[in-house]
Amino acid sequence: MTLTALQHALAQFAVEREWEQFHTPKNLAMALAGESGELLEIFQWLTPEQSAQVMRDGERAVQVREEMADVLAYLLRLADVLGVDLEQALAEKIEKNRLKYPVHLARGKADKYTQLGG
Amino acid sequence: MTLTALQHALAQFAVEREWEQFHTPKNLAMALAGESGELLEIFQWLTPEQSAQVMRDGERAVQVREEMADVLAYLLRLADVLGVDLEQALAEKIEKNRLKYPVHLARGKADKYTQLGG
Amino acid sequence: MTLTALQHALAQFAVEREWEQFHTPKNLAMALAGESGELLEIFQWLTPEQSAQVMRDGERAVQVREEMADVLAYLLRLADVLGVDLEQALAEKIEKNRLKYPVHLARGKADKYTQLGG
Amino acid sequence: MTLTALQHALAQFAVEREWEQFHTPKNLAMALAGESGELLEIFQWLTPEQSAQVMRDGERAVQVREEMADVLAYLLRLADVLGVDLEQALAEKIEKNRLKYPVHLARGKADKYTQLGG
Repeated sequence: MTLTALQHALAQFAVEREWEQFHTPKNLAMALAGESGELLEIFQWLTPEQSAQVMRDGERAVQVREEMADVLAYLLRLADVLGVDLEQALAEKIEKNRLKYPVHLARGKADKYTQLGG
Repeated sequence: MTLTALQHALAQFAVEREWEQFHTPKNLAMALAGESGELLEIFQWLTPEQSAQVMRDGERAVQVREEMADVLAYLLRLADVLGVDLEQALAEKIEKNRLKYPVHLARGKADKYTQLGG
Repeated sequence: MTLTALQHALAQFAVEREWEQFHTPKNLAMALAGESGELLEIFQWLTPEQSAQVMRDGERAVQVREEMADVLAYLLRLADVLGVDLEQALAEKIEKNRLKYPVHLARGKADKYTQLGG
Repeated sequence: MTLTALQHALAQFAVEREWEQFHTPKNLAMALAGESGELLEIFQWLTPEQSAQVMRDGERAVQVREEMADVLAYLLRLADVLGVDLEQALAEKIEKNRLKYPVHLARGKADKYTQLGG
Protein backbone atom coordinates (compact mmCIF):
# COMPACT_ATOMS: atom_id res chain seq x y z
CA MET A 1 0.00 0.00 0.00
CA THR A 2 1.15 3.54 -0.68
CA LEU A 3 1.33 6.22 2.02
CA THR A 4 -1.86 7.76 0.65
CA ALA A 5 -3.71 4.45 0.77
CA LEU A 6 -2.45 3.87 4.32
CA GLN A 7 -3.60 7.34 5.31
CA HIS A 8 -7.07 6.61 3.95
CA ALA A 9 -7.21 3.29 5.80
CA LEU A 10 -6.17 5.00 9.05
CA ALA A 11 -8.72 7.79 8.60
CA GLN A 12 -11.49 5.26 7.93
CA PHE A 13 -10.40 3.23 10.96
CA ALA A 14 -10.77 6.35 13.12
CA VAL A 15 -14.12 7.35 11.60
CA GLU A 16 -15.62 3.87 12.15
CA ARG A 17 -14.69 4.01 15.83
CA GLU A 18 -15.63 7.69 16.29
CA TRP A 19 -12.06 8.39 17.33
CA GLU A 20 -11.66 11.53 15.23
CA GLN A 21 -12.63 13.59 18.25
CA PHE A 22 -9.42 12.41 19.98
CA HIS A 23 -7.21 13.02 16.95
CA THR A 24 -6.33 16.67 17.49
CA PRO A 25 -2.83 17.59 16.28
CA LYS A 26 -1.79 18.02 19.92
CA ASN A 27 -2.95 14.53 20.88
CA LEU A 28 -1.47 12.92 17.77
CA ALA A 29 1.90 14.58 18.44
CA MET A 30 1.73 13.09 21.95
CA ALA A 31 0.87 9.63 20.61
CA LEU A 32 3.72 9.84 18.11
CA ALA A 33 6.19 10.74 20.86
CA GLY A 34 4.78 7.98 23.06
CA GLU A 35 5.31 5.34 20.37
CA SER A 36 8.82 6.67 19.67
CA GLY A 37 9.46 6.20 23.37
CA GLU A 38 8.34 2.57 23.21
CA LEU A 39 10.66 1.96 20.27
CA LEU A 40 13.47 3.62 22.23
CA GLU A 41 12.92 1.28 25.17
CA ILE A 42 13.66 -1.77 23.02
CA PHE A 43 17.15 -0.40 22.38
CA GLN A 44 17.97 1.24 25.69
CA TRP A 45 20.12 -1.47 27.27
CA LEU A 46 21.62 -2.84 24.06
CA THR A 47 25.19 -2.11 23.03
CA PRO A 48 25.55 -0.52 19.57
CA GLU A 49 26.61 -3.97 18.31
CA GLN A 50 23.61 -5.73 19.85
CA SER A 51 21.32 -3.09 18.39
CA ALA A 52 22.64 -3.90 14.91
CA GLN A 53 21.63 -7.57 15.43
CA VAL A 54 18.20 -6.85 16.88
CA MET A 55 16.23 -8.37 13.98
CA ARG A 56 17.89 -11.77 14.48
CA ASP A 57 15.85 -12.29 17.65
CA GLY A 58 12.42 -13.28 16.33
CA GLU A 59 10.39 -11.92 19.23
CA ARG A 60 12.19 -8.59 19.30
CA ALA A 61 12.01 -8.28 15.53
CA VAL A 62 8.22 -8.44 15.74
CA GLN A 63 8.22 -5.82 18.51
CA VAL A 64 10.51 -3.46 16.58
CA ARG A 65 8.41 -3.81 13.42
CA GLU A 66 5.17 -3.13 15.30
CA GLU A 67 6.49 -0.09 17.13
CA MET A 68 7.81 1.32 13.87
CA ALA A 69 4.38 0.74 12.31
CA ASP A 70 2.78 2.61 15.23
CA VAL A 71 5.15 5.57 14.80
CA LEU A 72 4.33 5.70 11.08
CA ALA A 73 0.59 5.41 11.81
CA TYR A 74 0.52 8.48 14.05
CA LEU A 75 2.85 10.43 11.77
CA LEU A 76 0.51 9.74 8.83
CA ARG A 77 -2.59 10.64 10.85
CA LEU A 78 -0.98 13.90 11.93
CA ALA A 79 0.03 14.70 8.35
CA ASP A 80 -3.52 13.95 7.20
CA VAL A 81 -5.14 16.12 9.87
CA LEU A 82 -2.71 19.00 9.22
CA GLY A 83 -2.70 18.69 5.43
CA VAL A 84 1.06 18.10 5.22
CA ASP A 85 2.50 16.22 2.24
CA LEU A 86 5.14 14.20 4.08
CA GLU A 87 7.06 12.94 1.07
CA GLN A 88 7.27 16.43 -0.37
CA ALA A 89 8.28 17.86 3.01
CA LEU A 90 11.11 15.34 3.34
CA ALA A 91 12.32 15.86 -0.24
CA GLU A 92 12.60 19.59 0.50
CA LYS A 93 14.32 18.99 3.84
CA ILE A 94 16.94 16.82 2.16
CA GLU A 95 17.70 19.62 -0.31
CA LYS A 96 17.94 22.11 2.55
CA ASN A 97 20.30 19.81 4.44
CA ARG A 98 22.58 19.51 1.40
CA LEU A 99 23.35 23.22 1.86
CA LYS A 100 23.48 23.02 5.65
CA TYR A 101 25.92 20.10 5.77
CA PRO A 102 28.33 20.42 2.85
CA VAL A 103 30.20 17.16 2.28
CA HIS A 104 33.66 18.67 2.79
CA LEU A 105 32.73 20.11 6.19
CA ALA A 106 30.48 17.38 7.56
CA ARG A 107 32.48 14.33 6.56
CA GLY A 108 32.84 11.84 9.41
CA LYS A 109 32.09 14.41 12.09
CA ALA A 110 29.51 13.52 14.68
CA ASP A 111 30.33 16.71 16.56
CA LYS A 112 29.52 18.89 13.62
CA TYR A 113 26.47 16.74 13.01
CA THR A 114 25.22 17.10 16.54
CA GLN A 115 25.73 20.83 16.69
CA LEU A 116 24.25 21.55 13.31
CA GLY A 117 21.75 18.76 13.52
CA GLY A 118 18.68 20.55 14.97
CA MET B 1 9.28 10.92 -4.36
CA THR B 2 8.27 7.49 -3.06
CA LEU B 3 9.39 6.19 0.31
CA THR B 4 11.92 3.94 -1.43
CA ALA B 5 13.37 6.86 -3.38
CA LEU B 6 13.55 8.93 -0.19
CA GLN B 7 15.29 6.05 1.59
CA HIS B 8 17.88 5.89 -1.18
CA ALA B 9 18.43 9.65 -1.03
CA LEU B 10 18.89 9.49 2.76
CA ALA B 11 21.29 6.55 2.53
CA GLN B 12 23.36 8.34 -0.12
CA PHE B 13 23.35 11.51 1.99
CA ALA B 14 24.81 9.51 4.90
CA VAL B 15 27.37 7.70 2.74
CA GLU B 16 28.66 10.96 1.20
CA ARG B 17 29.24 12.40 4.67
CA GLU B 18 30.61 9.15 6.17
CA TRP B 19 27.79 9.25 8.69
CA GLU B 20 26.87 5.56 8.38
CA GLN B 21 29.12 4.83 11.36
CA PHE B 22 26.73 6.89 13.54
CA HIS B 23 23.59 5.29 12.14
CA THR B 24 23.30 2.26 14.39
CA PRO B 25 19.70 1.23 15.12
CA LYS B 26 20.18 2.39 18.70
CA ASN B 27 21.32 5.86 17.65
CA LEU B 28 18.62 6.20 15.00
CA ALA B 29 15.93 5.24 17.53
CA MET B 30 17.32 8.01 19.76
CA ALA B 31 17.30 10.55 16.94
CA LEU B 32 13.73 9.58 16.05
CA ALA B 33 12.61 10.08 19.65
CA GLY B 34 14.51 13.37 19.82
CA GLU B 35 12.77 14.73 16.73
CA SER B 36 9.38 13.54 18.03
CA GLY B 37 10.18 15.50 21.17
CA GLU B 38 10.85 18.65 19.13
CA LEU B 39 7.52 18.23 17.35
CA LEU B 40 5.84 17.75 20.72
CA GLU B 41 7.30 21.01 22.01
CA ILE B 42 5.53 22.99 19.30
CA PHE B 43 2.19 21.79 20.67
CA GLN B 44 2.84 21.70 24.40
CA TRP B 45 1.26 24.99 25.45
CA LEU B 46 -1.48 25.07 22.81
CA THR B 47 -5.10 24.29 23.63
CA PRO B 48 -6.63 21.48 21.54
CA GLU B 49 -8.38 24.19 19.51
CA GLN B 50 -5.19 26.17 18.93
CA SER B 51 -3.42 22.97 17.89
CA ALA B 52 -6.05 22.43 15.18
CA GLN B 53 -5.23 25.88 13.74
CA VAL B 54 -1.46 25.52 13.91
CA MET B 55 -0.91 25.57 10.14
CA ARG B 56 -2.52 29.01 9.81
CA ASP B 57 0.52 30.58 11.44
CA GLY B 58 3.07 30.65 8.62
CA GLU B 59 6.18 30.43 10.77
CA ARG B 60 4.84 27.58 12.88
CA ALA B 61 3.57 25.76 9.81
CA VAL B 62 7.12 25.66 8.46
CA GLN B 63 8.41 24.40 11.80
CA VAL B 64 5.76 21.65 12.05
CA ARG B 65 6.43 20.52 8.49
CA GLU B 66 10.20 20.39 9.05
CA GLU B 67 9.96 18.47 12.31
CA MET B 68 7.61 15.97 10.67
CA ALA B 69 10.10 15.58 7.82
CA ASP B 70 12.86 14.92 10.39
CA VAL B 71 10.77 12.26 12.12
CA LEU B 72 10.10 10.57 8.77
CA ALA B 73 13.78 10.80 7.82
CA TYR B 74 14.97 8.90 10.89
CA LEU B 75 12.12 6.41 10.68
CA LEU B 76 13.08 5.66 7.06
CA ARG B 77 16.78 5.38 7.90
CA LEU B 78 16.00 2.99 10.74
CA ALA B 79 13.75 0.90 8.49
CA ASP B 80 16.50 0.81 5.87
CA VAL B 81 19.21 -0.22 8.31
CA LEU B 82 16.98 -2.91 9.88
CA GLY B 83 15.48 -4.15 6.61
CA VAL B 84 11.90 -3.37 7.67
CA ASP B 85 9.25 -2.75 4.98
CA LEU B 86 7.38 0.06 6.72
CA GLU B 87 4.33 0.16 4.47
CA GLN B 88 3.88 -3.60 4.75
CA ALA B 89 4.39 -3.44 8.53
CA LEU B 90 1.71 -0.77 8.90
CA ALA B 91 -0.76 -2.56 6.58
CA GLU B 92 -0.41 -5.65 8.82
CA LYS B 93 -0.74 -3.61 12.01
CA ILE B 94 -3.99 -2.08 10.76
CA GLU B 95 -5.42 -5.57 10.13
CA LYS B 96 -4.32 -6.66 13.60
CA ASN B 97 -5.94 -3.59 15.16
CA ARG B 98 -9.23 -4.34 13.40
CA LEU B 99 -9.46 -7.48 15.56
CA LYS B 100 -8.13 -5.77 18.68
CA TYR B 101 -10.56 -2.83 18.55
CA PRO B 102 -13.88 -4.11 17.19
CA VAL B 103 -16.07 -1.20 16.14
CA HIS B 104 -18.94 -2.06 18.50
CA LEU B 105 -16.63 -2.09 21.55
CA ALA B 106 -14.28 0.75 20.70
CA ARG B 107 -16.77 3.32 19.41
CA GLY B 108 -16.20 6.75 20.91
CA LYS B 109 -14.26 5.45 23.89
CA ALA B 110 -10.99 7.10 24.70
CA ASP B 111 -10.74 5.01 27.85
CA LYS B 112 -10.96 1.77 25.96
CA TYR B 113 -8.58 3.23 23.44
CA THR B 114 -6.05 4.20 26.04
CA GLN B 115 -6.14 0.89 27.83
CA LEU B 116 -6.05 -1.25 24.72
CA GLY B 117 -3.88 1.19 22.87
CA GLY B 118 -0.37 -0.23 23.46
CA MET C 1 13.96 9.96 52.03
CA THR C 2 16.09 12.78 50.65
CA LEU C 3 17.31 12.83 47.04
CA THR C 4 20.78 11.84 48.24
CA ALA C 5 19.40 8.87 50.18
CA LEU C 6 17.33 7.84 47.17
CA GLN C 7 20.40 8.11 44.95
CA HIS C 8 22.32 5.83 47.28
CA ALA C 9 19.48 3.31 47.35
CA LEU C 10 19.31 3.32 43.53
CA ALA C 11 23.08 2.93 43.20
CA GLN C 12 23.08 0.02 45.64
CA PHE C 13 20.15 -1.56 43.79
CA ALA C 14 22.17 -1.45 40.56
CA VAL C 15 25.36 -2.76 42.19
CA GLU C 16 23.56 -5.73 43.77
CA ARG C 17 22.18 -6.75 40.36
CA GLU C 18 25.41 -5.98 38.45
CA TRP C 19 23.45 -3.48 36.36
CA GLU C 20 26.07 -0.73 36.54
CA GLN C 21 27.47 -1.95 33.21
CA PHE C 22 24.16 -0.92 31.57
CA HIS C 23 24.01 2.46 33.28
CA THR C 24 26.06 4.55 30.86
CA PRO C 25 24.86 8.16 30.57
CA LYS C 26 23.65 7.39 27.05
CA ASN C 27 21.53 4.45 28.19
CA LEU C 28 20.18 6.30 31.22
CA ALA C 29 19.16 9.26 29.03
CA MET C 30 17.29 6.76 26.84
CA ALA C 31 15.57 5.16 29.83
CA LEU C 32 14.59 8.59 31.15
CA ALA C 33 13.05 9.52 27.79
CA GLY C 34 11.32 6.14 27.61
CA GLU C 35 9.69 6.60 31.02
CA SER C 36 8.68 10.18 30.13
CA GLY C 37 7.02 8.66 27.06
CA GLU C 38 5.06 6.21 29.22
CA LEU C 39 3.88 9.08 31.42
CA LEU C 40 2.90 10.99 28.30
CA GLU C 41 0.77 8.09 27.06
CA ILE C 42 -1.43 8.26 30.15
CA PHE C 43 -2.43 11.81 29.19
CA GLN C 44 -2.51 11.60 25.40
CA TRP C 45 -6.26 11.17 24.85
CA LEU C 46 -7.41 13.21 27.85
CA THR C 47 -8.84 16.70 27.51
CA PRO C 48 -7.03 19.35 29.57
CA GLU C 49 -9.95 19.16 32.03
CA GLN C 50 -9.78 15.37 32.30
CA SER C 51 -6.03 15.59 32.82
CA ALA C 52 -6.61 17.88 35.82
CA GLN C 53 -8.82 15.17 37.39
CA VAL C 54 -6.54 12.25 36.66
CA MET C 55 -5.73 11.47 40.31
CA ARG C 56 -9.42 10.89 41.12
CA ASP C 57 -9.32 7.61 39.20
CA GLY C 58 -7.62 5.22 41.62
CA GLU C 59 -6.06 2.95 39.03
CA ARG C 60 -4.72 5.79 36.94
CA ALA C 61 -3.45 7.63 40.00
CA VAL C 62 -1.26 4.62 40.83
CA GLN C 63 0.02 4.51 37.25
CA VAL C 64 0.84 8.24 37.18
CA ARG C 65 2.63 8.02 40.51
CA GLU C 66 4.70 5.02 39.41
CA GLU C 67 5.70 6.53 36.07
CA MET C 68 6.73 9.73 37.82
CA ALA C 69 8.81 7.65 40.25
CA ASP C 70 10.47 5.92 37.28
CA VAL C 71 11.32 9.27 35.66
CA LEU C 72 12.84 10.51 38.93
CA ALA C 73 14.75 7.23 39.35
CA TYR C 74 16.54 7.53 36.01
CA LEU C 75 17.10 11.25 36.44
CA LEU C 76 18.76 10.61 39.82
CA ARG C 77 20.85 7.72 38.44
CA LEU C 78 22.02 9.92 35.57
CA ALA C 79 22.88 12.76 37.95
CA ASP C 80 24.80 10.32 40.15
CA VAL C 81 26.77 8.83 37.26
CA LEU C 82 27.58 12.29 35.82
CA GLY C 83 28.26 13.97 39.16
CA VAL C 84 25.54 16.59 38.71
CA ASP C 85 23.98 18.23 41.77
CA LEU C 86 20.38 18.39 40.56
CA GLU C 87 18.99 20.68 43.21
CA GLN C 88 21.82 23.14 42.70
CA ALA C 89 21.43 22.93 38.92
CA LEU C 90 17.72 23.72 39.15
CA ALA C 91 18.22 26.56 41.63
CA GLU C 92 20.66 28.15 39.16
CA LYS C 93 18.32 27.56 36.22
CA ILE C 94 15.49 29.32 38.02
CA GLU C 95 17.71 32.36 38.57
CA LYS C 96 18.72 32.33 34.91
CA ASN C 97 15.08 32.10 33.84
CA ARG C 98 14.18 35.12 35.97
CA LEU C 99 16.35 37.19 33.65
CA LYS C 100 15.20 35.38 30.50
CA TYR C 101 11.48 35.78 31.20
CA PRO C 102 10.95 39.13 32.91
CA VAL C 103 7.50 39.28 34.49
CA HIS C 104 6.36 42.32 32.50
CA LEU C 105 7.18 40.66 29.17
CA ALA C 106 6.20 37.07 29.86
CA ARG C 107 2.92 37.62 31.70
CA GLY C 108 0.15 35.37 30.41
CA LYS C 109 1.87 34.71 27.09
CA ALA C 110 2.13 31.13 25.96
CA ASP C 111 3.58 32.28 22.64
CA LYS C 112 6.40 34.13 24.29
CA TYR C 113 6.85 31.18 26.59
CA THR C 114 7.03 28.71 23.73
CA GLN C 115 9.46 30.75 21.71
CA LEU C 116 11.75 31.62 24.57
CA GLY C 117 11.13 28.37 26.32
CA GLY C 118 14.05 26.22 25.10
CA MET D 1 17.45 24.02 48.21
CA THR D 2 15.21 21.05 49.00
CA LEU D 3 12.69 19.66 46.52
CA THR D 4 9.89 21.35 48.44
CA ALA D 5 11.64 24.71 48.33
CA LEU D 6 12.28 24.26 44.61
CA GLN D 7 8.64 23.39 44.06
CA HIS D 8 7.59 26.56 45.84
CA ALA D 9 10.01 28.64 43.77
CA LEU D 10 8.69 27.09 40.54
CA ALA D 11 5.05 27.63 41.57
CA GLN D 12 5.77 31.26 42.42
CA PHE D 13 7.60 31.72 39.14
CA ALA D 14 4.50 30.48 37.29
CA VAL D 15 2.10 32.60 39.35
CA GLU D 16 4.11 35.79 38.76
CA ARG D 17 3.95 35.24 34.99
CA GLU D 18 0.33 34.02 34.97
CA TRP D 19 1.53 30.76 33.48
CA GLU D 20 -0.56 28.53 35.74
CA GLN D 21 -3.25 28.42 33.05
CA PHE D 22 -0.77 26.56 30.80
CA HIS D 23 0.34 24.15 33.52
CA THR D 24 -2.30 21.44 33.14
CA PRO D 25 -1.01 17.94 33.90
CA LYS D 26 -1.33 17.11 30.19
CA ASN D 27 0.81 20.08 29.14
CA LEU D 28 3.38 19.49 31.88
CA ALA D 29 3.72 15.82 30.86
CA MET D 30 4.38 17.06 27.31
CA ALA D 31 6.96 19.59 28.48
CA LEU D 32 8.68 16.90 30.57
CA ALA D 33 8.87 14.57 27.57
CA GLY D 34 10.10 17.44 25.39
CA GLU D 35 12.96 18.25 27.77
CA SER D 36 13.85 14.55 28.06
CA GLY D 37 14.06 14.56 24.27
CA GLU D 38 16.48 17.48 24.32
CA LEU D 39 18.66 15.66 26.85
CA LEU D 40 18.52 12.56 24.64
CA GLU D 41 19.74 14.53 21.62
CA ILE D 42 22.98 15.44 23.41
CA PHE D 43 23.82 11.74 23.64
CA GLN D 44 22.43 10.39 20.39
CA TRP D 45 25.60 10.22 18.30
CA LEU D 46 28.00 9.49 21.17
CA THR D 47 29.46 6.05 21.74
CA PRO D 48 28.82 4.61 25.22
CA GLU D 49 32.44 5.52 26.05
CA GLN D 50 32.08 9.09 24.82
CA SER D 51 28.84 9.44 26.79
CA ALA D 52 30.73 8.52 29.97
CA GLN D 53 33.16 11.43 29.33
CA VAL D 54 30.51 13.98 28.44
CA MET D 55 31.13 16.22 31.46
CA ARG D 56 34.78 16.76 30.48
CA ASP D 57 33.65 18.98 27.61
CA GLY D 58 32.82 22.27 29.32
CA GLU D 59 30.20 23.45 26.86
CA ARG D 60 28.39 20.13 26.77
CA ALA D 61 28.58 19.79 30.55
CA VAL D 62 26.64 23.05 30.87
CA GLN D 63 24.07 21.83 28.35
CA VAL D 64 23.61 18.47 30.10
CA ARG D 65 23.22 20.16 33.48
CA GLU D 66 20.65 22.64 32.15
CA GLU D 67 18.57 20.02 30.37
CA MET D 68 18.56 17.88 33.52
CA ALA D 69 17.42 20.92 35.51
CA ASP D 70 14.60 21.45 32.99
CA VAL D 71 13.47 17.83 33.32
CA LEU D 72 13.46 18.15 37.11
CA ALA D 73 11.58 21.46 36.89
CA TYR D 74 8.66 20.01 34.93
CA LEU D 75 8.63 16.82 37.00
CA LEU D 76 8.37 18.92 40.18
CA ARG D 77 5.66 21.17 38.70
CA LEU D 78 3.67 18.10 37.64
CA ALA D 79 4.05 16.55 41.09
CA ASP D 80 2.93 19.82 42.69
CA VAL D 81 -0.13 20.18 40.46
CA LEU D 82 -1.13 16.52 40.96
CA GLY D 83 -0.32 16.39 44.68
CA VAL D 84 2.22 13.58 44.30
CA ASP D 85 4.98 13.18 46.91
CA LEU D 86 7.82 12.26 44.56
CA GLU D 87 10.33 11.12 47.14
CA GLN D 88 7.75 8.90 48.81
CA ALA D 89 6.62 7.54 45.43
CA LEU D 90 10.18 6.61 44.51
CA ALA D 91 10.93 5.04 47.91
CA GLU D 92 7.88 2.80 47.43
CA LYS D 93 8.81 1.97 43.85
CA ILE D 94 12.28 0.85 44.96
CA GLU D 95 10.71 -1.51 47.50
CA LYS D 96 8.36 -2.88 44.84
CA ASN D 97 11.27 -3.41 42.45
CA ARG D 98 13.19 -5.37 45.10
CA LEU D 99 10.47 -8.02 44.84
CA LYS D 100 10.13 -7.74 41.07
CA TYR D 101 13.85 -8.12 40.36
CA PRO D 102 15.30 -10.54 42.92
CA VAL D 103 19.08 -10.33 42.94
CA HIS D 104 19.63 -14.00 42.08
CA LEU D 105 17.43 -13.76 38.95
CA ALA D 106 18.31 -10.29 37.73
CA ARG D 107 22.06 -10.35 38.19
CA GLY D 108 23.92 -9.05 35.15
CA LYS D 109 21.01 -9.63 32.80
CA ALA D 110 19.99 -6.81 30.52
CA ASP D 111 17.47 -9.09 28.82
CA LYS D 112 15.65 -9.83 32.02
CA TYR D 113 15.91 -6.19 32.90
CA THR D 114 14.43 -5.04 29.63
CA GLN D 115 11.56 -7.48 29.69
CA LEU D 116 10.67 -6.94 33.31
CA GLY D 117 11.63 -3.30 33.20
CA GLY D 118 8.26 -1.60 32.59
